[in-house]
Amino acid sequence: MIPPIPPKPANLADPAPDFPWPAGKRCAVIPAFDVDAESPWLIMDPKNVDRLVTLSFGGYEARVGVPKILEHLRSIELKATFFTPGWTVENHTKSCESLLKAGHELAHHGYLHKWIDPDDYPTEVDEMDRGIEAHERVLGLRPRGYRPPAATSSERTIELVADRGFLYCSVMLDDVNPNRHVLKDGRPGPVDIPFWWTLDDSMVSLYSLSLPRPIATSQQIYDLWVEEFDAIYDWGATYHLLLHPQIIGRPGRLAMLRRLLEYIQGHSGVWFATCEEVANFWIKKEKGQGAKAKKGARR
Amino acid sequence: MIPPIPPKPANLADPAPDFPWPAGKRCAVIPAFDVDAESPWLIMDPKNVDRLVTLSFGGYEARVGVPKILEHLRSIELKATFFTPGWTVENHTKSCESLLKAGHELAHHGYLHKWIDPDDYPTEVDEMDRGIEAHERVLGLRPRGYRPPAATSSERTIELVADRGFLYCSVMLDDVNPNRHVLKDGRPGPVDIPFWWTLDDSMVSLYSLSLPRPIATSQQIYDLWVEEFDAIYDWGATYHLLLHPQIIGRPGRLAMLRRLLEYIQGHSGVWFATCEEVANFWIKKEKGQGAKAKKGARR
Amino acid sequence: MIPPIPPKPANLADPAPDFPWPAGKRCAVIPAFDVDAESPWLIMDPKNVDRLVTLSFGGYEARVGVPKILEHLRSIELKATFFTPGWTVENHTKSCESLLKAGHELAHHGYLHKWIDPDDYPTEVDEMDRGIEAHERVLGLRPRGYRPPAATSSERTIELVADRGFLYCSVMLDDVNPNRHVLKDGRPGPVDIPFWWTLDDSMVSLYSLSLPRPIATSQQIYDLWVEEFDAIYDWGATYHLLLHPQIIGRPGRLAMLRRLLEYIQGHSGVWFATCEEVANFWIKKEKGQGAKAKKGARR
Amino acid sequence: MIPPIPPKPANLADPAPDFPWPAGKRCAVIPAFDVDAESPWLIMDPKNVDRLVTLSFGGYEARVGVPKILEHLRSIELKATFFTPGWTVENHTKSCESLLKAGHELAHHGYLHKWIDPDDYPTEVDEMDRGIEAHERVLGLRPRGYRPPAATSSERTIELVADRGFLYCSVMLDDVNPNRHVLKDGRPGPVDIPFWWTLDDSMVSLYSLSLPRPIATSQQIYDLWVEEFDAIYDWGATYHLLLHPQIIGRPGRLAMLRRLLEYIQGHSGVWFATCEEVANFWIKKEKGQGAKAKKGARR
Repeated sequence: MIPPIPPKPANLADPAPDFPWPAGKRCAVIPAFDVDAESPWLIMDPKNVDRLVTLSFGGYEARVGVPKILEHLRSIELKATFFTPGWTVENHTKSCESLLKAGHELAHHGYLHKWIDPDDYPTEVDEMDRGIEAHERVLGLRPRGYRPPAATSSERTIELVADRGFLYCSVMLDDVNPNRHVLKDGRPGPVDIPFWWTLDDSMVSLYSLSLPRPIATSQQIYDLWVEEFDAIYDWGATYHLLLHPQIIGRPGRLAMLRRLLEYIQGHSGVWFATCEEVANFWIKKEKGQGAKAKKGARR
Repeated sequence: MIPPIPPKPANLADPAPDFPWPAGKRCAVIPAFDVDAESPWLIMDPKNVDRLVTLSFGGYEARVGVPKILEHLRSIELKATFFTPGWTVENHTKSCESLLKAGHELAHHGYLHKWIDPDDYPTEVDEMDRGIEAHERVLGLRPRGYRPPAATSSERTIELVADRGFLYCSVMLDDVNPNRHVLKDGRPGPVDIPFWWTLDDSMVSLYSLSLPRPIATSQQIYDLWVEEFDAIYDWGATYHLLLHPQIIGRPGRLAMLRRLLEYIQGHSGVWFATCEEVANFWIKKEKGQGAKAKKGARR
Repeated sequence: MIPPIPPKPANLADPAPDFPWPAGKRCAVIPAFDVDAESPWLIMDPKNVDRLVTLSFGGYEARVGVPKILEHLRSIELKATFFTPGWTVENHTKSCESLLKAGHELAHHGYLHKWIDPDDYPTEVDEMDRGIEAHERVLGLRPRGYRPPAATSSERTIELVADRGFLYCSVMLDDVNPNRHVLKDGRPGPVDIPFWWTLDDSMVSLYSLSLPRPIATSQQIYDLWVEEFDAIYDWGATYHLLLHPQIIGRPGRLAMLRRLLEYIQGHSGVWFATCEEVANFWIKKEKGQGAKAKKGARR
Repeated sequence: MIPPIPPKPANLADPAPDFPWPAGKRCAVIPAFDVDAESPWLIMDPKNVDRLVTLSFGGYEARVGVPKILEHLRSIELKATFFTPGWTVENHTKSCESLLKAGHELAHHGYLHKWIDPDDYPTEVDEMDRGIEAHERVLGLRPRGYRPPAATSSERTIELVADRGFLYCSVMLDDVNPNRHVLKDGRPGPVDIPFWWTLDDSMVSLYSLSLPRPIATSQQIYDLWVEEFDAIYDWGATYHLLLHPQIIGRPGRLAMLRRLLEYIQGHSGVWFATCEEVANFWIKKEKGQGAKAKKGARR
């Protein structure tokens, strides 16, 4: 029999409204990094605690990846958002402090990068609250944004994000511009800054023995990301790069990222912004034009 | 021991007859889309009902993919066939109505995109009839064509398609031109419009954590699809594009599709047609030249 | 503990002797096809008997692939070897007869393409003998060569091949030129014509839902096969193309194969030969120069 | 619940110190080979002992791969490091002797290439000691370096390496230059020469039926390895090629490696060295400048 699945639209929110970008800008480019460090490897298999080599994947971030990325962002005067699990905050504190000192945004990315299980809400809450607590206690900051680990979620994720008072989250795959979640009771939820796999470096450049994905050349990744930029620039939409220091921080990959950002910077009308800046701008626009935009979404 | 497998030719029908295309045309190009929306994600794992992010893959279609594709098809004055599960019809009705209003063909693609299990005929029938019922009740139309979800089938699929009175189906992988099924009792069955993986965007551009396929650049997909067009144009056969708005509707992919269709439109003698138009033309030819063609198939 | 694995060289034979090719030739090119038809799909899962679409993968061979390949080989005056399971001989007899009539070699490729299981020798023997019987009864020929399905084997495979009186087999992956097997008791076994994955079209162009391999462009496959040809031509070794009509017989792939063979034919000193011709030539050389060559292998 | 994972940095050592390379050199290039032969196939599945074809993957090394690589290294006057399992030493002794005679370094790579299981320390010790014993007894040498099979490890691996008196090991993925392990009790451990998947030929060119990885063209691998060289040359870091004779020793691959090494040799300031030479140089620098460098690591 066909299982009794209740007709259920995935997303209660309207499509993204057609807000213009800041004066003179035609698209937004968000450089964002998930600073997972060893956490995904630790949570993937408890025995990995004892697998030094496996952990050393993630260990690359604090030793080499993050310093090299910081150096590069400084040289091209770009600010980025770094989604950081609580475990990273606690175990690589100096690395996190160096990000803050350089003026970047730190946001919430779970505690141990544990995938959300729809049937285990207590753990979802635990990951959320231990992550917040780690940011507050260790770094003295309350993150304004949240991205769940590995694009996982439950029925209550958005409610939880709203309840903890986040300005924005980056959860959904179903739009090309920011939009506001609608909670189950109809109240407005957090702003969502959507992303998509094509601009996620783990989809084109993460591999291990347990995940024998093919290794793309840096030129192939460059081509993919330029194609996507050209089209998003044409649409006037959001170019949300989702990167990982342990992946993009390798020599050949970082050289490619440098070329990509040069290519993008060579275009007029590009607004480089952190997630928080994009969310704040969007809310300002919503306040000014919200009622009209909600009805007139042209797509 | 070798299992006792009854010698059984897969297909009782003769190879496709060598019918000419309409006057002045040397090959047919069918732009077809499977409008699956959230349905394959819902049926893949019952827990996905609660996985908002996973469902948002499919949610992209109604919010962004379908409107963008419609806009593009309108701009180049092309009609297409949209194979649509009953669940999509019920839950994204406005999106389906916009397709009909623009003059495109809607066809049957199951109810919840449930893969056909050869051992569970009642569910196969249920998916078939609930799909028909949804199209009739919600959109007031009886689909003329049928494509099973994910290239699945049972021993009785063709009989069921014939019994429900479809003009054509798109089931088989074993020919390059339309041909008529032969039922088990020897009677003629529906016309089949075959397809092949190379022109299916899900084979080159669908990825998720549970399906970590490599991500091709749009240029690589363009190259593959142009190579295939050149050869099919040379053979005088059928170029059947099998696309999904949640895959091909992304910015970079849609820009590539635009380039591809421009390339094809630059050739003389190409007949752009919907599946229904191809099936109707084939049947007209069959009536006029059938007896001769059946004997003289030159391949 | 480390399992007690007896030190055991994989292959008792010496490396391939350095026999020269026929006068004026510097390398051999063998176009070979495995005419599996529906057999691998049937044996993969007993339920596939009822999966019409799955079977139609293989059904493409008799309907389209083989006729198109025959037409092409005729146009460039090339003879090839077709390794054919007994099931194909019985169920696509006309297709096999068309190969013989065009002067190509037919060789043994199992009965139902069942993978050899080292723990089930009776089935291995059954597949071997039913395959021989089908060729003899249906086509009136005794195949001179044997290739096991899917590069599978048991400890007794070579002994079985020798016992059934084959001239040659194509089993091993460990050399770049023909060489003679040594049986366990030290007697000479059949000649082996080795192959390698890089020149097997199934490794670059076979995909299905249960095997979601990435789809290479035809240009990528062309590049790979030209690179390999250039190097093998330089070494003076054997270029053994291992193709399948259901894969290489698709429009874009066949256009690529045509270009590849043109490229190769553009080189002087290439000996195009069937497996049987290569084996016969090798044996003639062995008789004339064997003793010397065996000692003086220069690699 | 979130499992109770003790906060545990993966690596107790400081990031690699910024030691300069030998006078006039700006980066190091290490050509290294893992001479696995049949051992990984034997250990992967006990039934493979009887699978002649599967074993013949590895059999290619002694028959063709190693001789061809030796010939090439000699022609360009390069010395390399060959990590060799004890099983290979025992079963392909002549092949190993030919490596030593040509002046290359042989190092330890386990006994049967058995993956280290964190829960089975006795087998890890057994693999280590039987590997050492095989090198000593058969070849009369004590290996100075160790690389674990397939990047596996346990909590005690580094301690074991230190205890057996190795000069260096190649274990970690978390740095781009050599550095010294710190043992659990704070004492200095062996020097580590890190590596990374991008320069491992098995990640781009190993495939079998049980591992249906896509087959890259040699040009794609060349591009990837040149991109990586350019960036590592720019960083002044370590270019550690991790190759396998059964993979890179195939005709097309070897032609590509030749082109790659020519490209690299065309750069000034490249220090080609074996692992042992790199470790010895590093230790000399450490002695001279260690205290200062440890504090002033600039990354």
